[in-house]
Amino acid sequence: MAILNSDRLFPVEPYVRDMARSLYETVCDLPIVSPHGHCDPSWFAKNERFPNPAELFVVPDHYAFRMLVSQGISMDSLGVPRTDGKTNANDPRAIWRILAENFHLFRGTPTSMWLEHSFQHVFGLDVPLSAETADHYYDHIDQKLGTPDFLPRALFERFNIEVLATTESALDDLQWHKQIANSGWQGRVVTTYRPDAVVDPDFENFATNVKQFGEITGEDTTSWQGYLQAHRVRRAEFKAFGATASDHGHATARTADLATADAETLFLKVTSGTFTPEEADLFRGQMITEMARMSLDDGLTLQLHAGSRRNHHRGVLATYGRDKGFDIPGRTDFVSALQPLLNVVGFEPELKIIVFTLDETTYARELAPLAGAYPALYLGPPWWFFDSYEGIKRFREATTETCGFYNTVGFNDDTRAFCSIPARHDVARRSDCSYLAQLVATGRLRENEAYQVAYDLTYGLVKKAYQL
Amino acid sequence: MAILNSDRLFPVEPYVRDMARSLYETVCDLPIVSPHGHCDPSWFAKNERFPNPAELFVVPDHYAFRMLVSQGISMDSLGVPRTDGKTNANDPRAIWRILAENFHLFRGTPTSMWLEHSFQHVFGLDVPLSAETADHYYDHIDQKLGTPDFLPRALFERFNIEVLATTESALDDLQWHKQIANSGWQGRVVTTYRPDAVVDPDFENFATNVKQFGEITGEDTTSWQGYLQAHRVRRAEFKAFGATASDHGHATARTADLATADAETLFLKVTSGTFTPEEADLFRGQMITEMARMSLDDGLTLQLHAGSRRNHHRGVLATYGRDKGFDIPGRTDFVSALQPLLNVVGFEPELKIIVFTLDETTYARELAPLAGAYPALYLGPPWWFFDSYEGIKRFREATTETCGFYNTVGFNDDTRAFCSIPARHDVARRSDCSYLAQLVATGRLRENEAYQVAYDLTYGLVKKAYQL
Amino acid sequence: MAILNSDRLFPVEPYVRDMARSLYETVCDLPIVSPHGHCDPSWFAKNERFPNPAELFVVPDHYAFRMLVSQGISMDSLGVPRTDGKTNANDPRAIWRILAENFHLFRGTPTSMWLEHSFQHVFGLDVPLSAETADHYYDHIDQKLGTPDFLPRALFERFNIEVLATTESALDDLQWHKQIANSGWQGRVVTTYRPDAVVDPDFENFATNVKQFGEITGEDTTSWQGYLQAHRVRRAEFKAFGATASDHGHATARTADLATADAETLFLKVTSGTFTPEEADLFRGQMITEMARMSLDDGLTLQLHAGSRRNHHRGVLATYGRDKGFDIPGRTDFVSALQPLLNVVGFEPELKIIVFTLDETTYARELAPLAGAYPALYLGPPWWFFDSYEGIKRFREATTETCGFYNTVGFNDDTRAFCSIPARHDVARRSDCSYLAQLVATGRLRENEAYQVAYDLTYGLVKKAYQL
Repeated sequence: MAILNSDRLFPVEPYVRDMARSLYETVCDLPIVSPHGHCDPSWFAKNERFPNPAELFVVPDHYAFRMLVSQGISMDSLGVPRTDGKTNANDPRAIWRILAENFHLFRGTPTSMWLEHSFQHVFGLDVPLSAETADHYYDHIDQKLGTPDFLPRALFERFNIEVLATTESALDDLQWHKQIANSGWQGRVVTTYRPDAVVDPDFENFATNVKQFGEITGEDTTSWQGYLQAHRVRRAEFKAFGATASDHGHATARTADLATADAETLFLKVTSGTFTPEEADLFRGQMITEMARMSLDDGLTLQLHAGSRRNHHRGVLATYGRDKGFDIPGRTDFVSALQPLLNVVGFEPELKIIVFTLDETTYARELAPLAGAYPALYLGPPWWFFDSYEGIKRFREATTETCGFYNTVGFNDDTRAFCSIPARHDVARRSDCSYLAQLVATGRLRENEAYQVAYDLTYGLVKKAYQL
Repeated sequence: MAILNSDRLFPVEPYVRDMARSLYETVCDLPIVSPHGHCDPSWFAKNERFPNPAELFVVPDHYAFRMLVSQGISMDSLGVPRTDGKTNANDPRAIWRILAENFHLFRGTPTSMWLEHSFQHVFGLDVPLSAETADHYYDHIDQKLGTPDFLPRALFERFNIEVLATTESALDDLQWHKQIANSGWQGRVVTTYRPDAVVDPDFENFATNVKQFGEITGEDTTSWQGYLQAHRVRRAEFKAFGATASDHGHATARTADLATADAETLFLKVTSGTFTPEEADLFRGQMITEMARMSLDDGLTLQLHAGSRRNHHRGVLATYGRDKGFDIPGRTDFVSALQPLLNVVGFEPELKIIVFTLDETTYARELAPLAGAYPALYLGPPWWFFDSYEGIKRFREATTETCGFYNTVGFNDDTRAFCSIPARHDVARRSDCSYLAQLVATGRLRENEAYQVAYDLTYGLVKKAYQL
Repeated sequence: MAILNSDRLFPVEPYVRDMARSLYETVCDLPIVSPHGHCDPSWFAKNERFPNPAELFVVPDHYAFRMLVSQGISMDSLGVPRTDGKTNANDPRAIWRILAENFHLFRGTPTSMWLEHSFQHVFGLDVPLSAETADHYYDHIDQKLGTPDFLPRALFERFNIEVLATTESALDDLQWHKQIANSGWQGRVVTTYRPDAVVDPDFENFATNVKQFGEITGEDTTSWQGYLQAHRVRRAEFKAFGATASDHGHATARTADLATADAETLFLKVTSGTFTPEEADLFRGQMITEMARMSLDDGLTLQLHAGSRRNHHRGVLATYGRDKGFDIPGRTDFVSALQPLLNVVGFEPELKIIVFTLDETTYARELAPLAGAYPALYLGPPWWFFDSYEGIKRFREATTETCGFYNTVGFNDDTRAFCSIPARHDVARRSDCSYLAQLVATGRLRENEAYQVAYDLTYGLVKKAYQL
């Protein structure tokens, strides 16, 4: 018995469903190119077994545990680690049972589809998860995890991943990437340059981080020029471990183009430890433009992930730390925010700036018009709450008419849940093929064009945008 | 002949239509639970006949008369009462004819479907309303209204209403609820605590209202603690007449968490009659948090209706008063607005805060992420302009993927048009079943799950959220 | 062979498709009423051949060239004129080949459908455009353009245009309209009063423009009353050349209702050349209200096109001038912005104010509630990035439930690409019929009503709203 409907996410009308399925069949087995995500490179460096079902599927995945929390289940009982190191739930089977008993909460969500895809396709399970099947699931998955076929590298190969990008801090020693490189394993795992800790004055320990940044790079990061040079040095090191992109989180998408002297003054201010929120924000904005300038030299694609208001609940941050499902999107004004950046580098033909949003209202109103005009600007795929069937549908319907397909860059899974990678790419492929089939059926795209676009959305565009 | 298509609002593709109809058949006869609305409790206390078709369907319903006004028909000619008591149109048959002659204006609107549902199902009419049938309609409805089966209590029972919540001001004497309670009639009509008149410093006669609030409760409402105590007293009285919830209108959704001394100072300021708009807004925000604290003690569910900018046209307000169709929604920023409240009570497992919005852009960007994280927060159903087929569709498509079904609370009719209650619940049930059928047909929900969710959306969730 | 699918844009499910096609067949041959656009009246005055395919389809159409630019093709190579008069690409065949080689960039866009509609229906081409067919296309179109049947007036007649409105500056001498009037040709080409150059203090040479405005009209435009009188004079002249409407571009939609003395002071300030951005914006807002007051006297319909942030890239503006695809929409708050205007004239029964937006989030939240209440306010059709299948679908789905069909005004093509006029109207007719068919199939509209609404959306409403 299958858990999943094999025609899931395809349109219902028979002609369109057949068209969608035909398109999907040409792309479903293409290799996975995963240009942005948060997998832990140590998995592939160490290649040790995943500890148990709860630590594979629940504890590290805020998509999974926040939904349980939203119905009154405590983070402690789900084993979410506390920052004070105090013990909480440590029986993985008990955690797993909580998931199983409450799995109805995920009805209609992409999380349930991702999980069921893993259950069926990765672990070969054939009954739905429920209170009754909780122990069967636990035992089955736990047993599989102990076999060689379920070690990280084996799964990587079985998932048909051509390349997987992880994301590391500018202060990271890249030891796991070094270990992977030295291991002789042929899997392609590359890093991505994420300098938030040294470009965001509001980041924990920013001043210390900048100091450490100088030590790591041997540059004088007490001066603006030395600080910029330290970025260049580290970008080059990241490139040596496969990086083809940098990545920047930014609540507002604000960019700036200050005169050199003003930028220098601002740098000294924010590293002095005494600065206003406005100065911090301006510095973050200036650094996006500086990173774009460096990209002109070293060729890294620049990713901008804008619009998340982090750590909405102070208590969750204090007790459990960051990335616990309490980051809530807000409105973003890209038109004003990106104007300084695009006036500097928007017409650079080799530069690739990829913008991601959590504010879907900007798709048709701001981002598609910008990407459909500026040569350097591309639209990242639907992100976080939106890399789902409805999210992808809204993205395509809102952007295609204004910027077409060729100002977009294929799919990102952006996940820290390893087993969800094939599931998420499968959802994207099905959703895109359904959209294309709808265009064909309504005379907006010719059938032969649809096959070409399906290939490009799955494989061609991502390779080009990330130079992979 | 039927006026309505019996398969209305179901998807067109035969398989999905059959699925939707099958789901609908299991919920269409469930009792109506109406946890929030604006019916007049005197109808059920006095149980007198509704005066005539115009005063049943046109005069009190701003959905109906604003559309006629928008095409140049005067409020006077529609019998909308003037605040100065001057006479306007008083021939109900003439008013009815205006509606009939202009009924084409309502094409494609939920108002036309609600009205036609009443015409067909409540009054047994079988031809569409038009200039030609205006008098036939008038005579038929007027005759029916004079029969015992069309008295308010008889209709309440025929509509299969399990419970109906009205909304009363904190200053209301609850006389009609008392009369209903003493009448021996078994219909369950409960009140809801709506304290706008004593928590909004911009409300007409606010200072006088607070004084009167003290007189009603016997508390000293010149002091902050006495004022809070007066709320506790009145909430208890409302609970005695069945209230399980409070309700709060609020243009901005802003909340606050002031220190006690600051709250006290602010209270003295706003009750002194001299205060800034910012102080008024801050006080409204503080009172939401105070109400939530009281809910922790007395268990009332807290409803927050945010985002309406009231009385857009000064002349309409001056001549005809509030609630005349000139309340226009605006943007709402829930992420910042609710942060103070949710940091105080967001993790209270027994508390239920239900948020309603008129800004659909917040569904996927703000409200679903918040409700899918905070235990105390629930999403109210689409409201006012949005409790329609398209509105419900957009709500489900935008929220389900992030917060699922179980952080929502079923349907509210929120109406002052009594006969529209079964019509509105029917639209909601059909729309939800159509959405669920679409999920089943595209492999996003199993068929057995869909039946459970259909029941929960119709009956289970509302009973739980409102403790009814 | 046909390039286009004859059932394009119709729903796929057979019953709904048949219904949509039946509706469409009753409106597809109705005359085109084009009440707002940017065609060049000299075409019809001079009636000379269009120079070549590139100058017909690429060079003047920012929809076409911005998409090519967004993928790194230079404006110079596309023949976009430079403001400094320096030569750029001048081989029209080379420009045409660039379009042909990159035509895949337009997949899924309305631009490709408009172009293919022209290729097939205007020029009789029967193979898709591609690198291989580029020269065939060029030769075929170029040859046709040299024949009498392809002169502007012949095409006007063949397109079945009942009336075409152009848009002229308040400073325009209307010479082409005079020449058309004197030519004896029966085609109805009317002008529209567009006073941006003399009402926007930030317009290039505003002070000089106001001076010239006085010279043209013989009024004393150094005084507020004289300046207003100059508008009245010019509006009358425009009316003499067929104008039934004025048109106003406005980034914010802000309106104002200043006391006369304050308006006079503000006028003297902004014409003095020294004023703040706030004063400029306030003056623009005041002038909308003044124009509405003049409409009460002379009957011109008032069009408000709000929300475009012009000239996002300084370099493009400096090198190529305005209207080059770098105008990017932003958020608009209509509720506050229109309140002063609507409080003054919103209940005028004869006045018609038509509002257009580039911020789709305002459809259901702001514009439909306003238009569904105020007698003077109407919603313009989807505009610019949104006069497409998906754009029209979103517009109807978001507005109809609240303001119905009869507070909307039919379609505007708003184009400067002459051959796209029939294509754009055809897209609108098909999209509207598909929407109506969906309503019928889901029991929200009766079949006989749908035929009436289809006629009204295509022909009846636009004639009434623009008094054409």
